[in-house]
Amino acid sequence: MIRVTLWYEYAQEIGELRREMVPGISDGDFQHFEEFVRSRVEKIHRVYPLGLMGTLEEALRKDPELEITPVNIYMPEYGLPDDLLENTDVLVWWSHILQDAIPDELAYKIVQRVQKGMGFVPLHSAHKSKPFMYLLGTSGCLQWREDDFCRVWTATPSHPIAAGIPQYFELEEEEMYGEPFDIPKPDDTIFMSWYRGGELFRSGCTWTRGYGRIFYFQPGHETSPNYHNPYVQKIIDQGIHWAAPTVWRPDFDCPNSLTKPEEK
Amino acid sequence: MIRVTLWYEYAQEIGELRREMVPGISDGDFQHFEEFVRSRVEKIHRVYPLGLMGTLEEALRKDPELEITPVNIYMPEYGLPDDLLENTDVLVWWSHILQDAIPDELAYKIVQRVQKGMGFVPLHSAHKSKPFMYLLGTSGCLQWREDDFCRVWTATPSHPIAAGIPQYFELEEEEMYGEPFDIPKPDDTIFMSWYRGGELFRSGCTWTRGYGRIFYFQPGHETSPNYHNPYVQKIIDQGIHWAAPTVWRPDFDCPNSLTKPEEK
Amino acid sequence: MIRVTLWYEYAQEIGELRREMVPGISDGDFQHFEEFVRSRVEKIHRVYPLGLMGTLEEALRKDPELEITPVNIYMPEYGLPDDLLENTDVLVWWSHILQDAIPDELAYKIVQRVQKGMGFVPLHSAHKSKPFMYLLGTSGCLQWREDDFCRVWTATPSHPIAAGIPQYFELEEEEMYGEPFDIPKPDDTIFMSWYRGGELFRSGCTWTRGYGRIFYFQPGHETSPNYHNPYVQKIIDQGIHWAAPTVWRPDFDCPNSLTKPEEK
Amino acid sequence: MIRVTLWYEYAQEIGELRREMVPGISDGDFQHFEEFVRSRVEKIHRVYPLGLMGTLEEALRKDPELEITPVNIYMPEYGLPDDLLENTDVLVWWSHILQDAIPDELAYKIVQRVQKGMGFVPLHSAHKSKPFMYLLGTSGCLQWREDDFCRVWTATPSHPIAAGIPQYFELEEEEMYGEPFDIPKPDDTIFMSWYRGGELFRSGCTWTRGYGRIFYFQPGHETSPNYHNPYVQKIIDQGIHWAAPTVWRPDFDCPNSLTKPEEK
Repeated sequence: MIRVTLWYEYAQEIGELRREMVPGISDGDFQHFEEFVRSRVEKIHRVYPLGLMGTLEEALRKDPELEITPVNIYMPEYGLPDDLLENTDVLVWWSHILQDAIPDELAYKIVQRVQKGMGFVPLHSAHKSKPFMYLLGTSGCLQWREDDFCRVWTATPSHPIAAGIPQYFELEEEEMYGEPFDIPKPDDTIFMSWYRGGELFRSGCTWTRGYGRIFYFQPGHETSPNYHNPYVQKIIDQGIHWAAPTVWRPDFDCPNSLTKPEEK
Repeated sequence: MIRVTLWYEYAQEIGELRREMVPGISDGDFQHFEEFVRSRVEKIHRVYPLGLMGTLEEALRKDPELEITPVNIYMPEYGLPDDLLENTDVLVWWSHILQDAIPDELAYKIVQRVQKGMGFVPLHSAHKSKPFMYLLGTSGCLQWREDDFCRVWTATPSHPIAAGIPQYFELEEEEMYGEPFDIPKPDDTIFMSWYRGGELFRSGCTWTRGYGRIFYFQPGHETSPNYHNPYVQKIIDQGIHWAAPTVWRPDFDCPNSLTKPEEK
Repeated sequence: MIRVTLWYEYAQEIGELRREMVPGISDGDFQHFEEFVRSRVEKIHRVYPLGLMGTLEEALRKDPELEITPVNIYMPEYGLPDDLLENTDVLVWWSHILQDAIPDELAYKIVQRVQKGMGFVPLHSAHKSKPFMYLLGTSGCLQWREDDFCRVWTATPSHPIAAGIPQYFELEEEEMYGEPFDIPKPDDTIFMSWYRGGELFRSGCTWTRGYGRIFYFQPGHETSPNYHNPYVQKIIDQGIHWAAPTVWRPDFDCPNSLTKPEEK
Repeated sequence: MIRVTLWYEYAQEIGELRREMVPGISDGDFQHFEEFVRSRVEKIHRVYPLGLMGTLEEALRKDPELEITPVNIYMPEYGLPDDLLENTDVLVWWSHILQDAIPDELAYKIVQRVQKGMGFVPLHSAHKSKPFMYLLGTSGCLQWREDDFCRVWTATPSHPIAAGIPQYFELEEEEMYGEPFDIPKPDDTIFMSWYRGGELFRSGCTWTRGYGRIFYFQPGHETSPNYHNPYVQKIIDQGIHWAAPTVWRPDFDCPNSLTKPEEK
C-alpha cells in the first residue's frame, strides 16, 4: 500500500478566506480578494460537483494499492500535522492563491520529508508553491492565460508514467502555461503541451532530490474539467506509483568518520 | 579564428544524383529518385537564389571570427578529406536524401573528431545523419509534415546560443518536425517549436560527447526560406561560437598506469 | 520472467583463438597473441573453477525471475543470432581482447535492440566494446592497471540497483580503472570505486537510449575472483531487473503525419 | 570586469563570536563554543598569515579582470547589504560554524540573485550553507574527517574550469569529505578527490539555477594550507570566470499573456 496524502488549498471551492492566510494584506484588498474567491465557487461546483480534489480522489480510490487521505488548508496545522506527514509516502499537492499562507517552517518539513524519500506530485499552479520552489531551487516562473485548447504530447513514451498513454490527447479547455518555464533541467521531460493560442510548455517533468522523487504535471485549472479526463487521472496515478519511496534515508547526519576505512 | 566547414548534401539543389550515392537501389527506383530530385531544383532556386547553403554561408561570412570552407558531397572524398576534417574546428552539417551515401568509415572519423573536441552543428534533416545518430546513440526518429507555420520559443534565455533572441520568433513556413523526438536527454533544451497544425518539438538542443560540443537546430527545410531569417542566422552563428573547441584531446589511448600514484 | 542473455568472449578461458576473430593481424603477432591467451587459462580456472561467466550464471540462476541463456563468441553468429537477440530482454555483456571481432553489423543490431527497449548491462572491459561505444557515442577511454585493492562506494543509495548494498564494500584484488572516464553525463552515478594505488572511478553508471536502459558496472577482471562476491552478484542481478524493458518501441519509422491534428 | 564578492565567515580566524550569531544556544554551550573558536586562531594564523580568505584574495587580485570586494559576517548586514549584493556578479562563499547565523531572508536574497544570473562559488564547508542547500534543494550531507592526504583528479578535462589543470594534483593535508554526497545530479562533475584514508568525493561540480551558474569546490579546510596551492587558486579563478553572468533576468513575473500570439 502506498500512503497518499492529497493536499488541497480548497479556498476557491468553498468561497471562504481566513484573514491570517493572506499575511500583510490591507483591509480593502482583502475584501476584493474575498469577492474574487466567492465569485469562482459556482463555476467550480458546476465543473466539479464533487469538488476539484474530490473528483481526483474518487478516481484514485479505484486503485486498490493507494491508501488515500484528503486534507486541506482549513484543517489544523494547515492540514499537514507532523504525524500525518511522517506517515505519508507520496504527497499530492494542489495550491494556488494561498501559496504564501504556508509557513516556511512547514514548507521545510515537506522539503526534508522528500529528501528522506517521500514522493512529491505538485499539480498545476503548485509550480509557485513553496515546496516546489524550495526543492527545485528555481522560481517556477512561466507565462499563462485562462482557457485555451490544450493538446498533451507524450515526449518520452518509454517512461512508466506514460504507460498506456497515447501519442497525444486533447483537453478542450485548460489554463495555458507557456515557456520559458524556470525549472532546473528535468531528469525526464515526459509530456509537453501545445496550446491553440500559440504557446507550448514542458507539462510533465521529473526530478530527484535526495532519496525523493518529484513529478510535476500541469493540467488542473480549477474551472476546467480535466480531472474528469481518464488520461489525466491515469497519469497522476502512475506518477504516484513512480514517486513512491523504495528506501528511506534514516537521518541528515554528516558523520565524523573517525576511523579510516584503511585502518579498520 | 574558428575554422568552420559547411558540409552540404547539395543533390536537390543541382538536381543530380550519382548512382553510387544510393547503394542497393534498383534501376527503376533510381530513375524515380532522380526525377524527384530534379523536380525540386526550381523551387529551391526560387527560394534560395544563392542556394540553401550559399545563403547560410553569406550570412556567416559577416562574422569576422569565422573562417569558412563550404564543401559538398560531390567533391572528392565526399567533400571531407582527412586534411580538411583535421583542420576543422566546427562542422556544420546539412544532409537529407543522401544520408546513407556517407560511408560508415567517414561517419566514424567525424565521431572521433568530435570526441577529440570538434564542435558539431547538425541542421534540420541531419537528425537522421550517421554522425548525429552515431554520436547520440539514438535513432533520431520523429514525425514530420511539409510546410506548416512555425513559432520558435526560447526556453533557456540565459544560454549563450540564445543571446539577443526574443521570447519567440515566427517562420511562416517550415517543415513540421514533431515529438516524440528520439534523442538522449539534452544538456540544454534551448529552443522549442510550435506548429500551427498541432505539433511541437524540441528544436534547439545541446549535448557533449568527449571533448566535443553538439548543437542541433531544426529550421532549414530546403524549400522554405528560413536561412534568410536573421534570428535563424544568429542562432547558427552563436551555435558555432558555443561549439568551438577550447581544448583538444590528444589521443584515444587507454594508458596502462604502471606506477601507482601512491608510489611515485 | 526476464529473458537474460549472458554474452561472453570466452577466449582467455579456453585458451583458444580463431584467426578470423583478430582481423588484420600478422602471423607473428597472432602467434604471440595466442601464447598470451593460453598463458591465462590456468589462472582463470584457479580463480573460477566454473569459469568467469559460469560463476556469474550460477549466481543469477538463484533468481527465479530470470530465464538465463549463456552464449559465447565461439558459437554460430558470434553467439547472438537474430532470433536469440529478438528474444532477449536484457543482454549482459563481457568482452575484452576480442572486442574488434564483433562485426559492426552485429553491433548495430544490438544498438537498435536497445533503442527498442532491451536492457544492456556491459561489464568491466566492455567499456571499449562496440555496443557500449556506439550506444554512448564516446570513446570509453580510461586508465588501468592490474591487481589493486578496490573499495566500492555507494554514491546513490536510493537507487533500486543499490538496494541492500552497504555504504561500501571491498574487493581485495580488482583491475584498477581510473578517471578520466570518457562517458556522457550519466543519468545516475550509483557506485564509485577507490583504489589503494591512488586512483578513483565512476564504476556503476546508468544511461537511457531510446526505450532502453543501460547499466555499466566495473568489477569483473578475469583473474580476480569478484563474481564470487555476493554484493557484486546482487548489484548485477538488480541491474538486470532495473534494465528490464517495460514497453517496446514497435519500429523506427519517421512517419509523415499527413493530417494535421488540428484538422482531425 | 567581473565584480566578485568574497564572503567569509571569519569567526575562527579572529577567535571571536557574537552571541546573536548562535541563536538558541545555552550560556554553557556558548562558552564552550567560544573556547573552541579561540583554540583555532593560532593554527589558522600559522597556516595563513594573511588569513584564509586573505590568501585567496591575494591570489585572485592577480587576475586583472576581477574587481574584488572582501566582506565578512561581522560587517553590517552580515557583510552583504542589498546594494553590494545587487552589484555582485559572482559571489564566492566560505562558511562553516556560523551557517545558521545567516537569516533565511538573506539566504533567499542570495538565491534570487543567483536565479537572476549571479554566479555562485561555494567553497568547502559551504555545502551546508543555506544558500547552497536552498539553491540545490538537497541536504548537502556527506561524511568527513580532519586532515588526510588528498589527490584531486580531473574527471572532465575539456571543461573551461579545468583548463591547464593536470590529470591530478596532490594536497598533503585536507579535510576528508566522503560520499555519499547528497546533491542533485551535477551538470558536470569536473573534479573528484581521492583520500588516503579510503574515501572518495565528487569535489568539483556545477549546476544551473535560473540564469545563474553554480560551481562548488571542496578544498579549503581552515587549518590546511590549500589556498596557497596554485592549482586550487587557478580552479577557483576559472570557476569565477565560468560562473560570471552573460545575461540577467529582469524580474520574476509570471506574466498574463492576454493576447494570443496567434491573434497578434
